[in-house]
Amino acid sequence: MSAVNKTKERILDVSAELFRQQGLAGTGVKQILNRANAPFGSLYHHFPGGKDELAAETIRRAGAQYAELVAGKLLAGPDLVANVRAAFRSAGQTLVDTDYADACPIETVALEVANTNEPLRLATAEVFESWLSGLTALLVANDVAKKKARPLAHVILSALEGAFVFARASRSTEALDACGAAMATLVAAAKS
Amino acid sequence: MSAVNKTKERILDVSAELFRQQGLAGTGVKQILNRANAPFGSLYHHFPGGKDELAAETIRRAGAQYAELVAGKLLAGPDLVANVRAAFRSAGQTLVDTDYADACPIETVALEVANTNEPLRLATAEVFESWLSGLTALLVANDVAKKKARPLAHVILSALEGAFVFARASRSTEALDACGAAMATLVAAAKS
Repeated sequence: MSAVNKTKERILDVSAELFRQQGLAGTGVKQILNRANAPFGSLYHHFPGGKDELAAETIRRAGAQYAELVAGKLLAGPDLVANVRAAFRSAGQTLVDTDYADACPIETVALEVANTNEPLRLATAEVFESWLSGLTALLVANDVAKKKARPLAHVILSALEGAFVFARASRSTEALDACGAAMATLVAAAKS
Repeated sequence: MSAVNKTKERILDVSAELFRQQGLAGTGVKQILNRANAPFGSLYHHFPGGKDELAAETIRRAGAQYAELVAGKLLAGPDLVANVRAAFRSAGQTLVDTDYADACPIETVALEVANTNEPLRLATAEVFESWLSGLTALLVANDVAKKKARPLAHVILSALEGAFVFARASRSTEALDACGAAMATLVAAAKS
């Protein structure tokens, strides 16, 4: 990778980290560039549309990376029910390990932009839809009827996103543990 | 109510509305005061601690109001299972009616402050804990075993908060409908 592209990657990595921890509006471009050790001119060199273009690319990239991470957990063993429970447990462990900072990379931003920035809302919607499609396909591959699979994918991902809110606010994994157990139960019931 | 207290109420109402729609960092004090038709001096008169004090009071007040609203839905009829499903449907209808703006009043702020503002994090944690206690008690009063009630309350509220994220991003009530049906199923199973 060229030095120029490395700078772009660093900017995107830092931007994802800061958006996840403090949201979009609370993160300044200067803070991102400083932490990425990137000159100010590099923002408009790599992202001619400025902060909005950087944010859109961050949402898509971090969303794809997170999908890969969660898919890895859901495919970790032969039993999807056990994998679902383990994925919630693992998300809780990550929160504990990161002082309750590292949850979903696009959740805070999605709520901030839903009624304030249409291009960024569309970027978050696109990421969520890709997660839903992926999980729906995985459920179908695990003997969940097609008609039940997409609603169940919605429930599992909603429970995960909502549990992140409770976990980060209360600094406890209680919500993630409860949701992991309940989602495992729902998946087991849908398979039978 | 005195004119002075009316001003304070107006500031808190506007602040709740703007936090819900665009988050804490994206909302300036000037915007709040302008929309509340309140003079600049009224901020420090009513909230000597400035924006942080206003935000903490907004979180607690909007959190209590939202608890009352949701409790009203959950107590609307004799059948808790039907009420749970209706509460999710009603939350979806509110989103449709408000251009997908009015979901949980403290969710965006909770995610923004979780690692950036400890007093405000504590305010959101306090609100969430009050919701959990209230719903746990309601489940117990509806024949859910004590041991199962709190985890189930966590799952229901997590599903609601997470479904709001999907609904607002995708401008669709699909997640709320799916979660309403699944939560009704879980409550019915826990009662038996």
